[in-house]
Amino acid sequence: MENKFAKRTQLIKSSETREILKVTERPEVISFAGGLPAPELFPVEAIKDVCNAVLNEEGAASLQYSTTEGYIPLRKAIGGMMKDIGINSTIDNVLITSGSQQAIDLTGRLFIDEGDTIICESPTYLAAINVFKSYNAKFVEVDMDDEGMVMEELEKKLQEHPTTKFIYTIPDFQNPTGRTLKLERRKRMIELANQYDVLIIEDNPYGAIRFAGEELPPVKHFDTESRVIYLSTFSKTFAPGLRLGWICADESFIEKYVALKQIADLHTDSFAQRIAARYLELFHIEEHIHNIKVVYKERCAIMLSCIEEFFPENISYSKPEGGLFIWVELPPGLDAAHIFSECLRNNVACVPGTPFFPNGTEKNTLRLNYSNMSKEKIREGIKRMGEVLHHELEKETSLLDSKLTV
Amino acid sequence: MENKFAKRTQLIKSSETREILKVTERPEVISFAGGLPAPELFPVEAIKDVCNAVLNEEGAASLQYSTTEGYIPLRKAIGGMMKDIGINSTIDNVLITSGSQQAIDLTGRLFIDEGDTIICESPTYLAAINVFKSYNAKFVEVDMDDEGMVMEELEKKLQEHPTTKFIYTIPDFQNPTGRTLKLERRKRMIELANQYDVLIIEDNPYGAIRFAGEELPPVKHFDTESRVIYLSTFSKTFAPGLRLGWICADESFIEKYVALKQIADLHTDSFAQRIAARYLELFHIEEHIHNIKVVYKERCAIMLSCIEEFFPENISYSKPEGGLFIWVELPPGLDAAHIFSECLRNNVACVPGTPFFPNGTEKNTLRLNYSNMSKEKIREGIKRMGEVLHHELEKETSLLDSKLTV
Repeated sequence: MENKFAKRTQLIKSSETREILKVTERPEVISFAGGLPAPELFPVEAIKDVCNAVLNEEGAASLQYSTTEGYIPLRKAIGGMMKDIGINSTIDNVLITSGSQQAIDLTGRLFIDEGDTIICESPTYLAAINVFKSYNAKFVEVDMDDEGMVMEELEKKLQEHPTTKFIYTIPDFQNPTGRTLKLERRKRMIELANQYDVLIIEDNPYGAIRFAGEELPPVKHFDTESRVIYLSTFSKTFAPGLRLGWICADESFIEKYVALKQIADLHTDSFAQRIAARYLELFHIEEHIHNIKVVYKERCAIMLSCIEEFFPENISYSKPEGGLFIWVELPPGLDAAHIFSECLRNNVACVPGTPFFPNGTEKNTLRLNYSNMSKEKIREGIKRMGEVLHHELEKETSLLDSKLTV
Repeated sequence: MENKFAKRTQLIKSSETREILKVTERPEVISFAGGLPAPELFPVEAIKDVCNAVLNEEGAASLQYSTTEGYIPLRKAIGGMMKDIGINSTIDNVLITSGSQQAIDLTGRLFIDEGDTIICESPTYLAAINVFKSYNAKFVEVDMDDEGMVMEELEKKLQEHPTTKFIYTIPDFQNPTGRTLKLERRKRMIELANQYDVLIIEDNPYGAIRFAGEELPPVKHFDTESRVIYLSTFSKTFAPGLRLGWICADESFIEKYVALKQIADLHTDSFAQRIAARYLELFHIEEHIHNIKVVYKERCAIMLSCIEEFFPENISYSKPEGGLFIWVELPPGLDAAHIFSECLRNNVACVPGTPFFPNGTEKNTLRLNYSNMSKEKIREGIKRMGEVLHHELEKETSLLDSKLTV
């Protein structure tokens, strides 16, 4: 049979990192590789009550086809959550998606023509890179420092690429770096977007999980021309398996997104939407999120102190105030892919940072996840990683020495 | 702000029919417009038991992220169902999708390059037309008769369009016509696909709901070169709100579909997948489907006998042996869109057939759904439609008479 695949699929391969994650799922492996929330915190008993309430009181309606836009009480509740963080929105600004992954995919489908430029943090979220690449986007990366995307760099890139379609940003506890965009930069990003007439895609899956520092309003809070499209999800605050995300944007955008979602999957699981809506009605999600924060704060602190204790000195790393990830920068000579393999031989896993750079060849970074392992495993895992790093650095140094003495 | 939308979105509009459906949802309307299964048959109590069992026994795992391919016990169960209808398949041939709408969308994404030709029945499923149009496909329609797509016509079209990518067919109780492809034509379709080197997309959401006539093997049963991609769903046999569909195809295709699904939504709702898997384990879905058949058979029979009783004589209609729809052909002078409006004024709704013809201007067809209304409503609704049709035909005839006498 002749090859029948569409040309666009030549660019698409199964995510390497997802393949890596499969290897790291062996039970003996201490894994800092995935981005999984802690399952022991999922509100299983509450969801059981909620399922019974939904099926008893709403019955068949909860299992029937429903509207593409989403279940109205859930959209209302999300509208309220948006207001709480400083985004003025009504139900007409909210579309429920099948996880925020779908929100990212529909964004690519709605905005990206072949060859369009999009600007993003360097590094940025791997799955968003894969989506935008599948629509043939060109990536322009903007450097970050500990306070997020550097605005002078952003302006330079906007000048150099006047036909940029949008800025894709994860301002809060970014994946993969754990860094947060500081307040003045949020305002400045809006000014620049207005000045250069580009959209902003604000992807905020982690914003609710702040366990240190001061709350910051989302970039969309400062939006004066309805050019910020805000994406979020219940995956980190409730249950990722239910695949519930949302888009909050101007009605003119939502209308187009709805047409695309009709094509993509008609609508998001009605039952899952009602479970979330009923949970928000019957339980205090703030209390639940508080519990998540307490645990993640502790795990993050332990990971940071173990890095301090066990990693070589010339390694730098981010100090997140929330979210799920720590970003590690190794000395330039070390190859993270090799470190990954050596760690795995010692039954500890991380993710090499290279795929998080859409154009990049940076080989000396690693992402560590702290949300999914116990304190004991974090200590043991970081200790093992430290041994590998010390060993590799010694090899590197003696190699360098021998070169110098030749 | 400058228009930022991608070019592809110019082709996409919110489905007219979905907009029509919104109008017909007023409680006073007797609606034959939608394609909704009868909600009173949904196994609500069983699903309640199943939810409790899943949450008690699988707990947090049922709410966590999971693999793109789908929940293994569900894929196994589907593999078994496929074998039961004569499709040889293992778990590696099955991908769980977010409803079969997603299966259709991923199919467009995987195979259609701009301008590619696809061949389909005339008329065919509206939502599939919208998907394939969004990928810029050209449609070649093949005439049907009461025994499905006419194979001589199909061969002619394959000769005329040698670069056809695939044949899209709904062989069982087709949407919108209710017609079924007869056995010899299934075999012939495979021969033609082999000869002309095209794929077949066999979309079979209704096959399990046969309430009359003889079971027929799916087209894929006769597939000798792994060129049939089979799509199905739990929407008509279990619960559409859960958005559970699947693709059954050669591993080389499934692998590519998985990469696309990772991009589209990571994976289908884990909890919904486990609900379905556990239901299949704990309950007898054949008994449940039997109950559906009994009810739909009766509703179909009543609708057919009321059409016979109340509709004008020169109207023809299909006599389905399963599924959800009856297709009505009006005399050429009548405009279905006008009939639709007149019916709606009398609080009865149907769907005008025009959008089911991808290139077509046929204006004198209607689709009637019988699965979603009670016997009493079917009788009353068809009676009202009959009055509208008689009235419109009389107007048409007297118009014709007056033209002749001028």
